[in-house]
Amino acid sequence: MFTTIEGIGLIAGALTTFSFLPQVIKIWRTKDVSSISLLMYSLFCFGVFLWLIYGIALKSLSLMLANGITLSFALCILCLKIGMEKRIKEKN
Amino acid sequence: MFTTIEGIGLIAGALTTFSFLPQVIKIWRTKDVSSISLLMYSLFCFGVFLWLIYGIALKSLSLMLANGITLSFALCILCLKIGMEKRIKEKN
Repeated sequence: MFTTIEGIGLIAGALTTFSFLPQVIKIWRTKDVSSISLLMYSLFCFGVFLWLIYGIALKSLSLMLANGITLSFALCILCLKIGMEKRIKEKN
Repeated sequence: MFTTIEGIGLIAGALTTFSFLPQVIKIWRTKDVSSISLLMYSLFCFGVFLWLIYGIALKSLSLMLANGITLSFALCILCLKIGMEKRIKEKN
């Protein structure tokens, strides 16, 4: 049954999942990753990957969807961070 | 009962929660917030706050703990972003 509490959970999931999209767009536009923490996104991506495994094990569609989408955004940020810093190092 | 799957869930929760700490430390050390997305942390903090409400409603200690700690780290980053950009604007 759909309750107010489940509604809050769904909004919470959508917000924490899609909040990473503005960060991807900001990096893409500015090509600036200087203040992004490599360690944060490395730990975060691994954590979200484990959440995805957890969701698959529990056969929870919500966990699979939310963590699948979050992982793709977070991996984008991680790859942009690594790629852009590599380019800067090669230039210097 | 404690299962391998629940163990994976606990590690996942610890990783995604504490991953924000290196970002807080990085900003604190470098005083650089240029590439941090204000919109990302605004949406993320609101989403984690709703997850906390959801955890309180479900009386889930894991949800309350994980989201309480994540919210304090994410709020730190959000306040540092707003505070440092305000100072830069005042200087110019």
